[in-house]
Amino acid sequence: MTTFVFRRQLTVEYGHCDPDGVAFISQLYQYFDTSTWLLFEAALGVKPPDFMATIGILPLVEVRANCRKPPRFGDVIEIASRVSEFRRSSFNVEHRITIGGELAVEGGETRVWAVRDKNAEAKISSRPIPPEIIARFS
Amino acid sequence: MTTFVFRRQLTVEYGHCDPDGVAFISQLYQYFDTSTWLLFEAALGVKPPDFMATIGILPLVEVRANCRKPPRFGDVIEIASRVSEFRRSSFNVEHRITIGGELAVEGGETRVWAVRDKNAEAKISSRPIPPEIIARFS
Amino acid sequence: MTTFVFRRQLTVEYGHCDPDGVAFISQLYQYFDTSTWLLFEAALGVKPPDFMATIGILPLVEVRANCRKPPRFGDVIEIASRVSEFRRSSFNVEHRITIGGELAVEGGETRVWAVRDKNAEAKISSRPIPPEIIARFS
Amino acid sequence: MTTFVFRRQLTVEYGHCDPDGVAFISQLYQYFDTSTWLLFEAALGVKPPDFMATIGILPLVEVRANCRKPPRFGDVIEIASRVSEFRRSSFNVEHRITIGGELAVEGGETRVWAVRDKNAEAKISSRPIPPEIIARFS
Repeated sequence: MTTFVFRRQLTVEYGHCDPDGVAFISQLYQYFDTSTWLLFEAALGVKPPDFMATIGILPLVEVRANCRKPPRFGDVIEIASRVSEFRRSSFNVEHRITIGGELAVEGGETRVWAVRDKNAEAKISSRPIPPEIIARFS
Repeated sequence: MTTFVFRRQLTVEYGHCDPDGVAFISQLYQYFDTSTWLLFEAALGVKPPDFMATIGILPLVEVRANCRKPPRFGDVIEIASRVSEFRRSSFNVEHRITIGGELAVEGGETRVWAVRDKNAEAKISSRPIPPEIIARFS
Repeated sequence: MTTFVFRRQLTVEYGHCDPDGVAFISQLYQYFDTSTWLLFEAALGVKPPDFMATIGILPLVEVRANCRKPPRFGDVIEIASRVSEFRRSSFNVEHRITIGGELAVEGGETRVWAVRDKNAEAKISSRPIPPEIIARFS
Repeated sequence: MTTFVFRRQLTVEYGHCDPDGVAFISQLYQYFDTSTWLLFEAALGVKPPDFMATIGILPLVEVRANCRKPPRFGDVIEIASRVSEFRRSSFNVEHRITIGGELAVEGGETRVWAVRDKNAEAKISSRPIPPEIIARFS
């Protein structure tokens, strides 16, 4: 478990919500995905659109979420995100959404550290995560 | 594991895809969510908008997905969905996305069998799943 | 043209963008819709989820957008929104997205001032816009 | 006004809808965008993902929609799309959503006939629309 935590607050928007008035599950993944990009920006000092040119791409291989109390339209939520494990060429990110300090949703994802094949754009290959990258998350 | 499987085919649309040209993770959940509604419609003969009045609501408590090969813009995908387990008042649904017969994404979700509180719209209570409902999935 | 302008800044997220790397048109409408809710919150001091109980609903009847320069992943955009015209029971909102001070997208929408029928939830009826509401936008 | 009309039917999904239970405006644009791609596929016999390599790109410059009766969760809608005007290097598409034969939403868009600059991916230049392309829509 790394110690670097990225936190942000946002308000659940009308168009994020489904007919039950709660943030639709797809939207929760949008929140998580952006928090992962921002976590890496905060730790590495690289703007998300520049990731590909400087550090590679981070394709998702696994995602999961547990909804205790789905956020509702207008709720102010806080998302706290951290890398929970670095492995050789993949890593896990954990996200916790709280509302007024109470845990509402726990999310997690596994991503690969990868580069795009120069001769075949659609092909990607995993790469070992450089130790100096991992060091930035502590 | 129930035996009733609901299958549908769809083509990945431009607006479903992210800058990498693959269906964004949020969109995969949109595919899964709709397949669950259609699975229940096919098994129970109840139109999705009539669920609330006739059988209750089915709030998501857990979702997960494993992407082996993310579907790309224009891919024709098949989604096969089934209830993998019924418990007292909750159940699991499994989704498998295949492209040309090859497994691309596995998804799963846990939902509760619930009703809305008549006096407090935002409150929901779980209910035992009726055996005659479970019987329709075999 | 009213004088009250609501401005906010946001950064275009990865999942907002399409395979061309620009914010998909659907996402631009998400930006506009939320800006309209926030404009009304700022002018009237009513939280968006409380609109229905206090001032009614604001169904969209017309939307339009002109994209000179579609925002790209990572762009910091500013959205400036104002009511451009109040009529008896409908009004227009104008949105301008600028990037680094340069106009990128112009959007507009027409909404109705309406209430929901107490006996038939799906039916809505338009209502004259109260002058004290209009006064809050100057 | 060209004579080639592309029609498709779809059912409004749960996740397409907002807290009012109607298809959110962003989703209507998703419907229209995909109908435009499918209209071109039907007229030209080119799969959407192959457009860029064979005929160019079709960036949106203007969109508009008029909602008379917003489609609701579960509604079966028909979308009829056609090119309403071809100009030198741009064209208009008109979309009509009907529900049970009744007009529900009218949409329109203006797109440019363009190619990407080989030396600067993010730059695009308009091109005259070839007469043999226009002929395929009559």
